[in-house]
This record gives sequence, C-alpha cells and structure tokens, in this order.
Amino acid sequence: MSDERYELYYWPGLPGRGEFIRLALADAGVPWTDVVRARQAAGEDGVAALLEVLQRDDLSPPPFAPPILHARGLWISHVAVILDWLGGEHGLAPSDEAGRLAAHQLQLTLTDFVAEAHDTHHPGGSNLAYEEQTEEALVRSKSFREARAPKFLGYFERVVRAHGEDADHLVAGGHSYVDLSLAHVLDGLAYAFPRAFAQWTKQTPRLIALRDRVFARERVAAYRASDEHVAFNEHGIFRHYPELDGDA
Amino acid sequence: MSDERYELYYWPGLPGRGEFIRLALADAGVPWTDVVRARQAAGEDGVAALLEVLQRDDLSPPPFAPPILHARGLWISHVAVILDWLGGEHGLAPSDEAGRLAAHQLQLTLTDFVAEAHDTHHPGGSNLAYEEQTEEALVRSKSFREARAPKFLGYFERVVRAHGEDADHLVAGGHSYVDLSLAHVLDGLAYAFPRAFAQWTKQTPRLIALRDRVFARERVAAYRASDEHVAFNEHGIFRHYPELDGDA
Repeated sequence: MSDERYELYYWPGLPGRGEFIRLALADAGVPWTDVVRARQAAGEDGVAALLEVLQRDDLSPPPFAPPILHARGLWISHVAVILDWLGGEHGLAPSDEAGRLAAHQLQLTLTDFVAEAHDTHHPGGSNLAYEEQTEEALVRSKSFREARAPKFLGYFERVVRAHGEDADHLVAGGHSYVDLSLAHVLDGLAYAFPRAFAQWTKQTPRLIALRDRVFARERVAAYRASDEHVAFNEHGIFRHYPELDGDA
Repeated sequence: MSDERYELYYWPGLPGRGEFIRLALADAGVPWTDVVRARQAAGEDGVAALLEVLQRDDLSPPPFAPPILHARGLWISHVAVILDWLGGEHGLAPSDEAGRLAAHQLQLTLTDFVAEAHDTHHPGGSNLAYEEQTEEALVRSKSFREARAPKFLGYFERVVRAHGEDADHLVAGGHSYVDLSLAHVLDGLAYAFPRAFAQWTKQTPRLIALRDRVFARERVAAYRASDEHVAFNEHGIFRHYPELDGDA
C-alpha cells in the first residue's frame, strides 16, 4: 500500500485548485496519476471515479470536495492540508515547527485570497452561473481590484522583503510549496485581470521575481510545458471576463 | 518563555473568529489573556496592541489578520492552524496522523462554511458596509439558505452518522476541537437565520445532539456563562438581518 503511486482526484478540464497540488508534486519529482483524466484517456467515465470517492462513507472523513490526494493509505483533501503533508514528506517546507507553521499560515492566507478572486465572478453564490450575477460581479470585482488584491499582494511583498531586499521566497530558508502556490496565483491573476495586474504589480517587484524564479525551476517548467498542464479558461477560479478588469 | 500565559489577539466587541480559539482554550482548561480586552480594561488602547503585532516585520510570517495566538514563543494565526496546534498540545484532537489530518480537514471545511455565512451580508466586498450591498446580500443569502447551508450541514450530519447512528462527534475517538467549532457555527447560524435554521436542522438531528453535548461540557458552559463570552451582534460573522432569513 505505502509504495503505490500517488493518486490525485480533481475535476477535469480546468487547472482549478488541483493545480496547487500538481505543481507541488511536479516540483518534488513525485510521479502521480491524475485519476479522472487517466480514466477518461482510457475511455472510461473519469468523473464517476471522483464522485464515487465523494460518496464513500468509510473514509474518515469523507472528503467534502476535491482536490483529494490518495497517498500512503491516506485520503487527504483541502489544498493547504495536502501541501502541509507533502511539504513534510517531500522537503517542500522547513522541517522545524516554526517554519512548518509559517508555511501553513501563508498558504491559508493564499487560500483566502484565492476564494476572494473566485468570488469576483461568483459573488451571488457558487450554485448560480456567472451570467446570473453579472451586476453583483461588477461590484465585487471593483472591491477586489481596488482594495482586496492590493492588500493581499502588498502583504506577500512585505513577507518576501522581510527575508532581504533581494529575496524571492516567502519562508525562511528558501524555496517552499508556498512559493509554488503564489506563483500560480500571480499567473491566474495576470490571466483574469491583465489591466489591473499591471497596475498592482508596479508595487510588488519581489513577487514578480519570485514568480519568474519558480517558473524557471526545471521540473516546474517541464510540467508547465507538458500535456498534463491545463491552461486557464472560464471554468475555473481565474476567469477572464474583461468587464471585471476595470477601465483601460 | 515557554511557561508564559498564552495570549490571544483579536478585535474586541464581537465573538468573531476569535471565538473558535476561546472555546478551545476554555475547554482545554488553558488560561489565557485576551490582550486587547485586558488592555482596554486597564484603560489603555487595546486595539493599538493588536495593530502593533500586525505591523511587526520580525515575525515570520507577520500575521495577515487576527486571531493570533502567542504561545510558547510561537506566533500563530489562522483559526485552523491554531486549533491544529492546540489540538496536538492539549489533547483536543486524535494523536495519530490520520486522526489529526481528519480533524484538520473538517475544520477547513468549517472555515469555508463560515466564510460563506459571512458573505451572505458582505457579497460585494468586505471593505463596504452592509447598507451598501443589501441588494447583493439578498441574492447571496438566498443561495446560502437554499443550497449552500443545507449542503454543508448535510455533509457534517453524514460525517457524524458515519461514527454510528447515535454518534454526536465528528472525529473518530470522540470529542475534539472540531466539535467545539461546529457547535459555535450552529449557534451562530441559529442567531443569524432563525427561520431557515429551524428548517435546515429538521434534517440534521445528530448535529443538534452534538451542539447540546458540547455546550453542556463543564468548562464550556462555565466560559459561555462568564463575562469573557461576548454575545453575537451585527459586527461579526453571524449577523441577524431579518431580510436575509427568507419568508416566514
């Protein structure tokens, strides 16, 4: 059991929250099977495999939602919990208590940031389509562009600078899974809000340096150039609706 | 340093996210100082003490937002991280890896539920007042009442039932910090949405049993009856705006 290949369960066709896990697995050099896609590639009903896991009452707890990592007999859900576990197992986080806690806290601040980025296009509720809440989305995205995104990005810039004026990492000691996640968030924000992103990041040069360093890492670059990497689209967290990006 | 009394930093005047930490500390029998309130009681500027911590660049990382627990030389923020740490230190979670992960995952699902409950009155952005987003709040709260809250509550009911038809706890082995948090969430939902809560919970008798068991615990009951316990009001996560509670 413990030597089996890791399995990732996530919705197909979008990067979504699964991408934070894929980037960590790729960077750590850990091979994994993306179960839904693998079954689809074999002509099977891949989504059914995911729904089956969500309905299993023998798991403690049954996962509420994907991503779900099945590794070494454990079934782990929630991005931040999976990354905390992978960070400890595969050297993607500090091994001391304070460092591990630091990474986990930063990841949860990113989690909040990601949820707010998502809610720019779904402020009325995740059970409604974007087209049913465009008016609300205009209000929420204005708040995000003018107040929330600058606040979060300014915070992360400050965290990086605390490690030195030329630093390009978030956690003491260097590269960690949080850097991978932040690079992906920056990538997503640049896709969804190209105009606003250009403005925000004038104030956050260290975050741009961090992103560029992360995406130049050999295994990360190889993964992002591969067929396993799904591009952003209008089914995920980061969606490009020009009307939400403010005025030129 | 390691023997110093724990310190909690949180906004005064509302239960907020600080309440999840207070309940865990109270139940564990760990004395703590609520720094902002203690300074206010001494005639000092308590909020300044919190803002000072948020501005400290020597903390790794500086906390993004309260609640913040200062304990044994560590500065920990994010409710779920603080509870994971307290759970391990003070016997409020299973000590095996799978059990500790289970508790942490359930807590993060509760975190998501709490964020959605908050956004019923702030779908337009947390930097705007409720009165500036009442129309959006009507849309979001309808989605919450009809889809999201029943989904989350049904999930937790299922998790409890997986431990036995008469179970009243979420994590294998019995009582944990997650039960404390869920009881508080149920309390908050009953305050904010009394009509809808009565409907939702017809389907979730085990959650009501869990809440009643938790609130009958000696130290929890003593804390909730004390002056340290702040009642819900319209400054926190759970706010009672009758127009968001649906039709009678």
